[in-house]
Amino acid sequence: MFMDQQQLFVKMALLSWDSAFKSTNKTLQNLSDEQLMKEVAPGRNTGIYLVGHLVAIHDNMFPLLDLGQRTYESLDQAFISNPDKSGFEMPAPQKLREYWNHVHERLRGELVQLGPAQWFEKHTLVSDDAFEREPHRNKLNVLLSRTSHMAYHGGQLALIK
Amino acid sequence: MFMDQQQLFVKMALLSWDSAFKSTNKTLQNLSDEQLMKEVAPGRNTGIYLVGHLVAIHDNMFPLLDLGQRTYESLDQAFISNPDKSGFEMPAPQKLREYWNHVHERLRGELVQLGPAQWFEKHTLVSDDAFEREPHRNKLNVLLSRTSHMAYHGGQLALIK
Repeated sequence: MFMDQQQLFVKMALLSWDSAFKSTNKTLQNLSDEQLMKEVAPGRNTGIYLVGHLVAIHDNMFPLLDLGQRTYESLDQAFISNPDKSGFEMPAPQKLREYWNHVHERLRGELVQLGPAQWFEKHTLVSDDAFEREPHRNKLNVLLSRTSHMAYHGGQLALIK
Repeated sequence: MFMDQQQLFVKMALLSWDSAFKSTNKTLQNLSDEQLMKEVAPGRNTGIYLVGHLVAIHDNMFPLLDLGQRTYESLDQAFISNPDKSGFEMPAPQKLREYWNHVHERLRGELVQLGPAQWFEKHTLVSDDAFEREPHRNKLNVLLSRTSHMAYHGGQLALIK
């Protein structure tokens, strides 16, 4: 009974992630490469910056969830450590779409294999001591937090015309 | 141990909701009434429409979670059933800010009182039969889904200059 609820909660968190991904992915597919170069609103981030930012952040979930090494660490300079229009080189939109597909296929493959107990383990950036005091800082919490983050930027991407 | 984990998911889902609320609330507080009347991006929804939309959707969580009656049903026509700029009367920004504060204070008071077992009960829009087949359609799932929805529109509100 309680095990069932644990599995249920994992399922709910994964469904919530999938829903944010599907919505953002659909928005991305409906935008041309030319549209991606536009700002989401005057003076704000470009579409391509937001896509690169999400790819880099989601790529970083592999080490955070102890699922292996990153693939796209080189994106961090242009898409995480610095704001848009800082002059760092960005991949072409077509390349970034490939990275987008790859990182989400790889994530999907890994996330569905994590067992309920593993989801409640600490993520790799929290110490044993801190985790003992704050047991909510587990892998599932990373998923919840990344889901909100993707929805936040997904809502912005949807504004490009 | 299992009871602890059940409490832990509820805590994680509530923290995730709180985080989306705090971020959106801060954005709203930093916008003047005049800024709220602007579109978030050219030809897109106005700030006031998004705020009214979130108030109406969150007010509707009371009956959905079986927590009592709604307060702001009259907002649905302008903010849920119809798109922005449909010509329906909207409350003044100051009024809407009061509603915003009231609905979130009331929600906070109710949500922290729901026990872990109650969160896994069906919400009021799912039938007993459907709930038996799809036990993830519970009250906690409503909270996860509304959290992503708030983050999505919160990201848009943050674009107003």
